[in-house]
Amino acid sequence: MALIVQKFGGSSVANAERVNNVASIVTDTYKDGNDVIVVVSAQGDTTDDLIAKAQEINPRASKREMDMLLTAGEQISVALLAMAIERIGCPVISMLGWQAGFMTNSAHAAARIKTIKADRVRSAIDKHQIVIVAGFQGINKYDDLTTLGRGGSDTSAVALAAALHADRCQIFTDVEGVFTADPRKVPGARKLDEITYDEMLELATLGAQVLNNRSVEMGKKYNVEIEVLSSLKRVPGTIVKETANMEQMLVRGVTKDTNVARISIIDLPDVPGIAFKIFSRLAAKNINVDIILQSIGRQGSKDITFTVSRDNAQETMDQVSRIAELQGKKILCDTDVAKVSVVGAGMETHPGAASLMFEALYNSDINIQMISTSEIKISVLIDEKDADKAVAEIHEKFMSSKSL
Amino acid sequence: MALIVQKFGGSSVANAERVNNVASIVTDTYKDGNDVIVVVSAQGDTTDDLIAKAQEINPRASKREMDMLLTAGEQISVALLAMAIERIGCPVISMLGWQAGFMTNSAHAAARIKTIKADRVRSAIDKHQIVIVAGFQGINKYDDLTTLGRGGSDTSAVALAAALHADRCQIFTDVEGVFTADPRKVPGARKLDEITYDEMLELATLGAQVLNNRSVEMGKKYNVEIEVLSSLKRVPGTIVKETANMEQMLVRGVTKDTNVARISIIDLPDVPGIAFKIFSRLAAKNINVDIILQSIGRQGSKDITFTVSRDNAQETMDQVSRIAELQGKKILCDTDVAKVSVVGAGMETHPGAASLMFEALYNSDINIQMISTSEIKISVLIDEKDADKAVAEIHEKFMSSKSL
Repeated sequence: MALIVQKFGGSSVANAERVNNVASIVTDTYKDGNDVIVVVSAQGDTTDDLIAKAQEINPRASKREMDMLLTAGEQISVALLAMAIERIGCPVISMLGWQAGFMTNSAHAAARIKTIKADRVRSAIDKHQIVIVAGFQGINKYDDLTTLGRGGSDTSAVALAAALHADRCQIFTDVEGVFTADPRKVPGARKLDEITYDEMLELATLGAQVLNNRSVEMGKKYNVEIEVLSSLKRVPGTIVKETANMEQMLVRGVTKDTNVARISIIDLPDVPGIAFKIFSRLAAKNINVDIILQSIGRQGSKDITFTVSRDNAQETMDQVSRIAELQGKKILCDTDVAKVSVVGAGMETHPGAASLMFEALYNSDINIQMISTSEIKISVLIDEKDADKAVAEIHEKFMSSKSL
Repeated sequence: MALIVQKFGGSSVANAERVNNVASIVTDTYKDGNDVIVVVSAQGDTTDDLIAKAQEINPRASKREMDMLLTAGEQISVALLAMAIERIGCPVISMLGWQAGFMTNSAHAAARIKTIKADRVRSAIDKHQIVIVAGFQGINKYDDLTTLGRGGSDTSAVALAAALHADRCQIFTDVEGVFTADPRKVPGARKLDEITYDEMLELATLGAQVLNNRSVEMGKKYNVEIEVLSSLKRVPGTIVKETANMEQMLVRGVTKDTNVARISIIDLPDVPGIAFKIFSRLAAKNINVDIILQSIGRQGSKDITFTVSRDNAQETMDQVSRIAELQGKKILCDTDVAKVSVVGAGMETHPGAASLMFEALYNSDINIQMISTSEIKISVLIDEKDADKAVAEIHEKFMSSKSL
C-alpha cells in the first residue's frame, strides 16, 4: 500500500467518456490498496474558452479577476470526476485549491506556492476517501484566488506529493512518456524509460509540453519520483528521478518551443545601466527573459535583443516602451520565431554536439537568429515556419550519430 | 448618496453585450454618488449546461458535488462583470459567496443563510469599490461550498441588503416589473407600481418567476424595500414593500406554476400516523409539499394526494416507496400538471372570488384536479396543457369584474 498522487490534464478529462476513464484508473489504483490523491486540470478547452470570454469583454482585465475567472475551470472538473467516482461506488471528496490548503503569494496568474496546509487532505485520506484536488490554483493571504500559471496543475501535483511524502507522483497525459522528439512529427522519436530531473528540466523549459518546468524543479528539490504516462493506454511511462539509466544516446531529446517572441531594442547609447533598467523592470512584472544578446551597433551605440514567452510579448513591449531612456528608440517585436533545442547530459563530454546541430540546420537551409548553450543543452532561435523541419533534421542527425 | 444592492439574473449577463449593459447600469448608479453592491447569477444557461454535464456522468451525484459544480457558474459571471467594470474605469472587486461572508447550513442544494460576515464587503465599500458578489452560493461550517437552490441569487441580494442596511435592493430581470399576469401570454396584463410583501410572496410561491419567494420573506422580515425592474429598459419597476397603494383591483395577479408534480398514494389503510410518516420523511429530505388532499377510499381505506415541485418528483417517489407501510401500494406520479392561482389582498372581502375563478374554468371546459385557498389567494391544479388558456380566461374574468 502506497500513497500515490495522480495528475490528469485537461485533455484527459475533456468529456464524460474521458472523465469516466480517469475515474476507472483512479479507482483501480484505490482498489489495489493504495491511498489516492488526484489533481485535475480544467476540462479540455475550458481555460481557453474562458480566456476568450474575458478577451471579448476586456482585453486588459486585471490578473486578479482573470484568476477569479479561470479557477472556475478546475472547479467544474473536480466535481465531475468526483461524481464519476461516486457512481463507481468508492468514497470520494473534491477540494478546491484553497480547501486543499494551497497557500500562494499574490502574483496573480503566476503565483508561487508558499506552503500547503494539507490537514484536510490528510484527514480525508485517513478516512480512506479518494481526494480530488483542483490543480493550478491556490489562495493568497487576502483570501483571493490565485493561479500558478498555465501548466500549473503539474506543480500542484508534485507539491502535494512532496508535502504528503507520497511514494510516487504520476502525471497522466495524452502521450506515453517523454520522447526524444515529438512522436507526432518525428517518425524516429523514441520513448525514454528514465530521465534525470536536470534533463527533464531542460526539456520542459524548452517546450516539450509533457511536464511543467516548475513541477520538475520541485520534484528535484523534494526528491519526488515522477512518472509521466498515458491516460489512454495503460503502459509504463517515463520515470523522472535523480539518476537515470544512461542509455547509449548522445541526447535525450530535440524540442521546439513556439511560445517565444523576440524583442529587439535598436541603437541604444552605449552607457552603463540600460540593460539593468530593462531587465529589472521586466523581473518586477514577473516576465521571464530567456536568451539575451547584446551587440555593438554603429558608433558607440548597441542593440539589445532578448526573448520572452509569446504570452508576455505585449506586456513586455508596453513595459519597455515606458522606460525613459528608451524614448524614441526603435523597439521591434517578432512573434514568428521558435526555439529549437537539443538536450542531454551526454553532450557535456561531446564538444562536437553544437557543430552537429548547426550542420543539420545548414543542410536544411535554416537561418539561425540567436544561439544559447548550457552544459546539457543547445538552443537556437529560428523562423517558426522552419521549426518542425529543424527538429526532424536535428533528431535524425543526432540519432544516427551515436558514434560521435 | 445611498447604499444600493443590485441583482442581475442569468439572462441579464448571458453574453458579452449584456454583461457590458449591466456594467453600464452599475457604473451609472455608482457615478451618481451611490455605493453599489452587485449580486449576479450564472450566465444564461450555464447552470443548466453544468447540470447536463453532471447528468451524463452520474444522474445521482451527491448534492455536495453538485454544489461544487454549480457554484463555478457564478464565479465566471462575477469575474466577467468585474472585468467589464474595470474597462469602464471604476474601482471594482469580485467576491465569491464565501468571500462575501455567506455562511449557510449544510443542506446542500437548498442551503439556508445562517449569517453574513460582511466585513470584507464593508471594507471594500469603504474604499469606494463596486463589489460584485456571486449570488446563490455560500459556505458551511466545514468549508464546503453550498447553494441556496435555484433562484437563490434573489435571496443572496436581499440578505446582503438586510445585513448592510442598504437603502434599496433592486432586482433586475428581463421583465419590467410585476404584472397582473404573464404579459407575454395575456394581452391585458398590467404592470403594478407597488405590491405588498404578502401579495408578492403568494405570487412568488405560485410561480410568477419574477422574485424568489425566500427573498420576499427575507425582505418582509428585515423590511428591505425591493424594486423589481428591467435590465434592458431603463424605466421604473414594481416596488415591493410593507404597505402598497391599493388600486381599484380585486386581484394583484393571475399566475401559473408548471414546476409541479402530483403524487398519489392509493388505497391506504385508514390508520393513524401514515400521513405523518410520509410528510415527516419528505421534510427531513428538504422536500416541500404544497397542496395536500386526503380522500376516503373504498371500505375503510383512503387515498393521499399531494403536490411537490417537479424537480423533487423523482426523489419524492424514491422516499415514499421506501416507507414500510406503503409496500405494495400503488403510488402514482403525474408531472403533466400546472397550478394556476389568483392572488390579491382584496379578495378577502369578496367571497365571490372563488366562484368567479371556477366560472372562468368551467366556461373554458377545464377540469379542476385539486383546490387550495388562503386569505389572499385561490389555487387550482389542472392539466398543464390547459394552463395558459386558464390564466388568460381567469385574468380576463377578474379584470373585467372590478365591480364584483
